Amino acid sequence: MVKKDEALLERFGGHPTPFYYYDGDAMHAHVSSLLARLHPAVRVHYALKANGNVALAGLLRSLGCGVEIASAGELFVAMEAGYAAEDVLYAGPGKTAAELSEAVACGIGCIHVESVRELQLLEDIAAQAGLFVRAAVRINPDNDLSGATIKMGGVPRPFGVDEGELDPFFEMLENCPHVYFQGIQVYTGTQMLKADQILASFANTLQLAERVQARYGVAMRTVNLGGGFGVPYFAHEQPLDMEQVIDGLNELAEQTRSHMPGVSLIIESGRYLVAQAGKYVCRALYTKESKGEKFVVADGGMNHYVSATFRGRRLRDNYPVQIMRRQANEREMGPNRHTEQKNTSVQERITAEQPLGEFASQISELPADAAMELETVSIVGPLCTPEDCMVKKAQLPPIQEGDYIVFPNAGAYGLSYSPLHFLGHATPMELLDFRGEVYVIRKHGDRADLLHHQRMIPLPEDVVPGSVL
Amino acid sequence: MVKKDEALLERFGGHPTPFYYYDGDAMHAHVSSLLARLHPAVRVHYALKANGNVALAGLLRSLGCGVEIASAGELFVAMEAGYAAEDVLYAGPGKTAAELSEAVACGIGCIHVESVRELQLLEDIAAQAGLFVRAAVRINPDNDLSGATIKMGGVPRPFGVDEGELDPFFEMLENCPHVYFQGIQVYTGTQMLKADQILASFANTLQLAERVQARYGVAMRTVNLGGGFGVPYFAHEQPLDMEQVIDGLNELAEQTRSHMPGVSLIIESGRYLVAQAGKYVCRALYTKESKGEKFVVADGGMNHYVSATFRGRRLRDNYPVQIMRRQANEREMGPNRHTEQKNTSVQERITAEQPLGEFASQISELPADAAMELETVSIVGPLCTPEDCMVKKAQLPPIQEGDYIVFPNAGAYGLSYSPLHFLGHATPMELLDFRGEVYVIRKHGDRADLLHHQRMIPLPEDVVPGSVL
Repeated sequence: MVKKDEALLERFGGHPTPFYYYDGDAMHAHVSSLLARLHPAVRVHYALKANGNVALAGLLRSLGCGVEIASAGELFVAMEAGYAAEDVLYAGPGKTAAELSEAVACGIGCIHVESVRELQLLEDIAAQAGLFVRAAVRINPDNDLSGATIKMGGVPRPFGVDEGELDPFFEMLENCPHVYFQGIQVYTGTQMLKADQILASFANTLQLAERVQARYGVAMRTVNLGGGFGVPYFAHEQPLDMEQVIDGLNELAEQTRSHMPGVSLIIESGRYLVAQAGKYVCRALYTKESKGEKFVVADGGMNHYVSATFRGRRLRDNYPVQIMRRQANEREMGPNRHTEQKNTSVQERITAEQPLGEFASQISELPADAAMELETVSIVGPLCTPEDCMVKKAQLPPIQEGDYIVFPNAGAYGLSYSPLHFLGHATPMELLDFRGEVYVIRKHGDRADLLHHQRMIPLPEDVVPGSVL
Repeated sequence: MVKKDEALLERFGGHPTPFYYYDGDAMHAHVSSLLARLHPAVRVHYALKANGNVALAGLLRSLGCGVEIASAGELFVAMEAGYAAEDVLYAGPGKTAAELSEAVACGIGCIHVESVRELQLLEDIAAQAGLFVRAAVRINPDNDLSGATIKMGGVPRPFGVDEGELDPFFEMLENCPHVYFQGIQVYTGTQMLKADQILASFANTLQLAERVQARYGVAMRTVNLGGGFGVPYFAHEQPLDMEQVIDGLNELAEQTRSHMPGVSLIIESGRYLVAQAGKYVCRALYTKESKGEKFVVADGGMNHYVSATFRGRRLRDNYPVQIMRRQANEREMGPNRHTEQKNTSVQERITAEQPLGEFASQISELPADAAMELETVSIVGPLCTPEDCMVKKAQLPPIQEGDYIVFPNAGAYGLSYSPLHFLGHATPMELLDFRGEVYVIRKHGDRADLLHHQRMIPLPEDVVPGSVL
């Protein structure tokens, strides 16, 4: 990605900030390489919740990924992205009958059933439709070896069937002739960065699958190991050793095939596939000081990329941020650039680029040879709330109005996770840079979006016309 | 609201959950009563960010409120709601030139300028348009008497001009012939529940206004005192003594008029005007147990009402919740009700109502005469994340599939504050119950919303057709 980074401002073109930028080639290389190194028995399904953009999802399909969805809405997006129904897995603790009916009708690849009640409902729906449906049971295991900070299993959770409560599930299954049992699914945690813990968790799930196969006499077609492959966000985090994960996983796949002939191992992954290919890009509107502290007000913030703010964050640390500057005349900078840009072509404006370097939040993490003078600054978004703070008292090169503020690793849980309409700003564009072309894969929102589906009511008779004050 | 509460299930009618329900009559009575009791020199502006629904905003306008907006998008919504431009105040630290131009062009009531840079920009824009614009300066005061937990001033903040840095502002103002100075604005905190702290903060702002008037020789037409009137969410919180606030504010208004003839005092209020009239309503899809703990999976959660979840919450306490049950046959309950409801008229289904009572999270807060047996339960939404937990280990009457789960005080920072598209569920309806009619003021979202503004790209040649696995 280095080469592209150098020319990043050129790739951004004249598109107004804020926007999300995805490096499709980097994603392509990253995912292709992962898939190529995996044992043929291992399949990867893209967790659409990480980024619901239809073009990104389509690109992952073209590389050979399946997809994992969590609602009928996501099923619709997956179909629009070109996934075949049999390549779709459907998970989630709160599936409605209407959603299950849709999934059954389209011939979905597998439904992860999360309770006896859901199994019963699924059988009823399939029977009524005169159809068969593939299903697996999601299990909440007794033990958890993942070491995940955000635990999805191994503790009391609304997800899946407790390992100790499988008897009633398989009893019910015997009375479900329209349900084709596929196997088990276990998802214990997310954002894991330790290869040995991930592999221990996978091995644990495979042992559980063997016990289930032995105890209930059901053949395993798939063992879904979940995912949770993490991505480092903070300076102190070490990247996941993916070589170790792949080697270990391939070894497990080879061993498993001997006990369970024909079984496929499924990995679900959202963040790991797309996070690092994405950037959230905004620009500095104003720089100001308050009581001795420096602030930069950007044109985007928690409304577009809430993950970068401190809201709900356990780790009170800043995401890394990259500051970039276009060499341009003063009038194009700052809050008035939108109007000024109209009469200036992109080619003219890109006379030079000055990437100011990438810095983590802590002084100790700064490159030793940073010749540039740094200053302590907080970067906030345009919203009228102290929550809209993306970078808090970080050491950064002096930011000027008009500078690009680029958050790397923003491809997952960015736009989809954010309160897009909070304070009425337009939803950002999404750009996909792929094979030489920068595609607009989501247009800039417009104000009509704010009133979409809304209706006025007849105002009461006591309405005051015109100015009320 | 008591009478309506009793018949609440009837008011919900056959609308599919989840939805927001607003009691327009309660809001009307609440706001009318507030406005009627205020000194004629005091104006109230509705902070649209609390709830951007156009019909709600229109209703508040009809009662005599002005409006406070924070973006050009919100300006658009305010206009659609019928506000006159002169009744609109525009605040926010990150106004773009395009936004300021729009506000100037429409003849906006007042722009709260938050820096010298913004003042300069505003003058340039007005001059270029050949128009005049009313503006006030937002000040970050040296001291803060509000006692607010979420401080907007009195500390280093990106909002407004520091009190100690006003000289350059008023120097610049002399060179801004297109800017009509209106006065000052101070907003120190939000969600305040102590009347004496609010009044101390208001008195402080008025003293600041006098100092500014004296020092810079500018006449005050408006002194904007901000707002921050709180609403109790948790069992331990005491409601704001509004009588005390109104009496004190009216007294301040009377005193101020003697020093500043013709001045208006402005109150901005979002939460206080609309929060208590709103309810977020979802239904129980599944009940289940995991490792000895009980869970209810509802059909809505953090995607619609993120404030009710524990994400980013300082207070690790539950919002109160009301459980209500329709007497109906078993088949209408649970996750399959959507399909079942099709053939059942609303009148037929409402054979009886059993409100099961409202309970806070702590046992000590339960009514002493609660004869019903309670159980410890957590209520989660349908999303595949542990973050989607709305009620954690609360003492509640046993919830059955199909029961309504009603969160009161949900009229503010509900839908607008939530990541609506996360995991691809439809956006909820909004219902306004006003003068005998239940209006649908926002239709149920549809799946096409998920792809709005999105575009596919031509897939690469190496695409695998059909099933990829």
